[in-house]
Amino acid sequence: MTTNTATTTNPTYARLIERVLDDSRLARCGAVLQWDQETKMPPQGVEPRGAQLAVLARVAHERRTSSEVGDMIAACEAAPDIVGDCDSDEAVTIQRLRKDYDRSTCIPSALVAEEAQLASQAQHNWAEARRNNDFSQFQPWLEKVVTLLRHKADCFGWAEGGEPWDALAEDYEPGCTAAWVESVFTPLRVRLQNLLDRIMGSSTPPSNAFNEVKLPVDAQEAFVRDIASSIGFDFQRGRLDVSTHPFCTSFHPRDVRITTRFHENNVNDAIGSTMHECGHGIYEQGLRQDQALLPLGQAVSLGIHESQSRLWENQVGRSQQFWQWCHPRLKQHFGDAVNTLDLSAVYGGANIVSPSLIRVEADEATYNMHIMIRFEIERLLLKGDLAAADVPAAWAERYREYLGIEVPDDANGCLQDVHWSMVSMGYFPTYTLGNLYSAQFFDAAKRAMPGLEDGFATGEFEPLRTWLNENIHKQGRRHLPADLCEVVTGSPLSADYLMDYLEGKLGAIYGL
Amino acid sequence: MTTNTATTTNPTYARLIERVLDDSRLARCGAVLQWDQETKMPPQGVEPRGAQLAVLARVAHERRTSSEVGDMIAACEAAPDIVGDCDSDEAVTIQRLRKDYDRSTCIPSALVAEEAQLASQAQHNWAEARRNNDFSQFQPWLEKVVTLLRHKADCFGWAEGGEPWDALAEDYEPGCTAAWVESVFTPLRVRLQNLLDRIMGSSTPPSNAFNEVKLPVDAQEAFVRDIASSIGFDFQRGRLDVSTHPFCTSFHPRDVRITTRFHENNVNDAIGSTMHECGHGIYEQGLRQDQALLPLGQAVSLGIHESQSRLWENQVGRSQQFWQWCHPRLKQHFGDAVNTLDLSAVYGGANIVSPSLIRVEADEATYNMHIMIRFEIERLLLKGDLAAADVPAAWAERYREYLGIEVPDDANGCLQDVHWSMVSMGYFPTYTLGNLYSAQFFDAAKRAMPGLEDGFATGEFEPLRTWLNENIHKQGRRHLPADLCEVVTGSPLSADYLMDYLEGKLGAIYGL
Repeated sequence: MTTNTATTTNPTYARLIERVLDDSRLARCGAVLQWDQETKMPPQGVEPRGAQLAVLARVAHERRTSSEVGDMIAACEAAPDIVGDCDSDEAVTIQRLRKDYDRSTCIPSALVAEEAQLASQAQHNWAEARRNNDFSQFQPWLEKVVTLLRHKADCFGWAEGGEPWDALAEDYEPGCTAAWVESVFTPLRVRLQNLLDRIMGSSTPPSNAFNEVKLPVDAQEAFVRDIASSIGFDFQRGRLDVSTHPFCTSFHPRDVRITTRFHENNVNDAIGSTMHECGHGIYEQGLRQDQALLPLGQAVSLGIHESQSRLWENQVGRSQQFWQWCHPRLKQHFGDAVNTLDLSAVYGGANIVSPSLIRVEADEATYNMHIMIRFEIERLLLKGDLAAADVPAAWAERYREYLGIEVPDDANGCLQDVHWSMVSMGYFPTYTLGNLYSAQFFDAAKRAMPGLEDGFATGEFEPLRTWLNENIHKQGRRHLPADLCEVVTGSPLSADYLMDYLEGKLGAIYGL
Repeated sequence: MTTNTATTTNPTYARLIERVLDDSRLARCGAVLQWDQETKMPPQGVEPRGAQLAVLARVAHERRTSSEVGDMIAACEAAPDIVGDCDSDEAVTIQRLRKDYDRSTCIPSALVAEEAQLASQAQHNWAEARRNNDFSQFQPWLEKVVTLLRHKADCFGWAEGGEPWDALAEDYEPGCTAAWVESVFTPLRVRLQNLLDRIMGSSTPPSNAFNEVKLPVDAQEAFVRDIASSIGFDFQRGRLDVSTHPFCTSFHPRDVRITTRFHENNVNDAIGSTMHECGHGIYEQGLRQDQALLPLGQAVSLGIHESQSRLWENQVGRSQQFWQWCHPRLKQHFGDAVNTLDLSAVYGGANIVSPSLIRVEADEATYNMHIMIRFEIERLLLKGDLAAADVPAAWAERYREYLGIEVPDDANGCLQDVHWSMVSMGYFPTYTLGNLYSAQFFDAAKRAMPGLEDGFATGEFEPLRTWLNENIHKQGRRHLPADLCEVVTGSPLSADYLMDYLEGKLGAIYGL
């Protein structure tokens, strides 16, 4: 068993790293069990699997929060050979381990167990309520979730002037506060609403033919595997499977699993989902192997993670140059079935914008409105300013205002997403932060590599991947996500990059 | 989370059961990881997976051997409401937990870690040596394995008059000693050798045409899934996948995984492998769910496990009546490709006997000779009466004597099996014990249900499965395996049942 190399020979540091590695390995066993649950497990396995995951989570939490670990961290913090140079790998590692440890120990074991139990029950009841299209069935569970999360936020605490949401978001987006998210989202909403109004008024929308052609699922699978390999997902160190909701999980940079989904009449969805998950997978495969499972070999935040998936899905996968490369391959894979689709039909078809009810089916532009709505509602729930019972009304009101559509029922409304039933709030905004980061990173990449997009037309994706790898993946958790954005792009996060990109591309496609 | 129901309300017993369940769940996480490794894992995942399995094994061992568990067992042993009726579920459970605990605590944690480490390295070096067809590369590792296992046997100890092999076999076949195995195997060998001599001299061997027909792997897979469902493997509580070496593993009676393998020109192998693993799977699915993961809901031994796989593979799957049912289905699945095969060709083809070099490809009769050879050699190694360096010669000598064939090289000789490199000795005989138990159980089932075999001809497998379930599966670890045999069949284990069965069936097929 090779352990990660450290430049220091401090024996406490070495022992701490071995311990942290073991605890990470144990925690990632849970990821294997979850991947199996989503992709392979027989129907009757649900209940025993839940019990397995619960004991694993409990044991992992006990180990992570043991005083032994705390003592080793404290000893390293007092060792000048470790923390003397505060930018050294060792010093940064200790800083992050300290933060993780303090955060873990804020939460009593009983609350961890309670949360696991509630997540299991609430998800079950959410699924049932969604099936029955009846929010009232889920309402008592949402109330329990809010109560538990407010208690959890109290355990963590938040900065002066902040709010409970901040305490929870820290798990997903370190350093992120609701006030900051609002300051980024507000200008985004204004410019986005304006663009959407103009798109809806377009008299020359692109053809939707690409999204209506039926193509066999087997051929679709071969096709998306071809794309995944081409953009750089390494199948020696990963797998692609099918699941209801596509996802990516990593057991180690050498074993990264992604999933996708197929519908006979929507190859576009399979391409988008696959490239999205490839983006996540390429990030995980690109983490430092010598720091695998340690802070400098971990993804920094969900927002930055989402920037990687969105960048490959949108900035690459919905670009004209990508389709120049992909269009002939479409013919190779599907033959006569795609004869009627010329380049403009597939490029246009991949960029249709249309307000809709379901987040996971939303296009690149309207998607962010779905997120803002969820962010606003969960923020109010956590503050105690909105009762669970009033969520459907708050939901409907915002869909009318932001997207101009009526919510017909709960299943197509506030019951559509699993997140809250997973006892998770503070997560949603990372999707839109990811969109914003992706546009800003891509802008920086284009400035650093003139002609970058032209390369896509001939299948040259390697330069982009290498740039992302060096600038983002290899940084691990060295910087906070917002700081990483400044380091990489020279500017703080701004909605302007995404809006410039959307207005430019969609303006041309819709003839605005 | 439902816990297993106990009739007692003793709180210490309840706490002990919860703890044992959690420890079992944790241990079965390792089974999920191993299943994934064999069936799904990308090539580069090997090393990190090994590290995950090692930490899981260490943590599971620490928990299993903690004094907390020992104290709870001792408290239950002193509680008349638990152990008063020594045949009650609770009393039997405590007896088995005591045995498991004492056995686990015999082994220092350092030895557990050393064993895991050695297994990982020895397997790697074994695979390399086998690829290079060079025993000398594996020899130093076999030496290390023998040294460690002798040390481990010393930790366990063995009964007066016994030997180191006994101490190790206890993990696989409780109560089994080398002397007892020898007493069962010796008469088997005499009768078997006689039968093989007569078969080899037969002037009317069955046609081998069935084993030469090429059939597409996709269709083979659909076919064996059909067979698996028909004989009662429950796909709501299990899966069938493909792996190099077929195996069965259980995470819980509600989630049992089996694998098989396919070769275009050997559907017979796929049928046999699938029915074999189904037998294991049906045992695991048939264990008491109210005692899942506890002693009374666990398989009793590898020998009894193998009896279930062999019974479905051989007594059922190589019977004339099974082929009466299966032959028309063969036509349904493979169409014209099997037109030339009549019932006698498939039944005969499924029962070809021919001495060969490779255990896992051996027929029902010669298979046992392969096992006796391995048993004799590992027994000598553990006693210190054979040096690792002399294994190839000892192997060749016995293959000449028992099977009348020359071993051409190491890869087709003593390097063919993975077991020793997994730091495992005492395991091999359970294969032949399984063959003997299967024949003896099947004889008892036929006596209990006249006309049982005739039912196979019309696809009636349910009566046999129910009988096995009630008499064997539901017993869990209530009896020692040899005692279970007496309880179920009325007689101690004897080679006569297998030999009567083989002589009867093969005598007719070979016209002896």
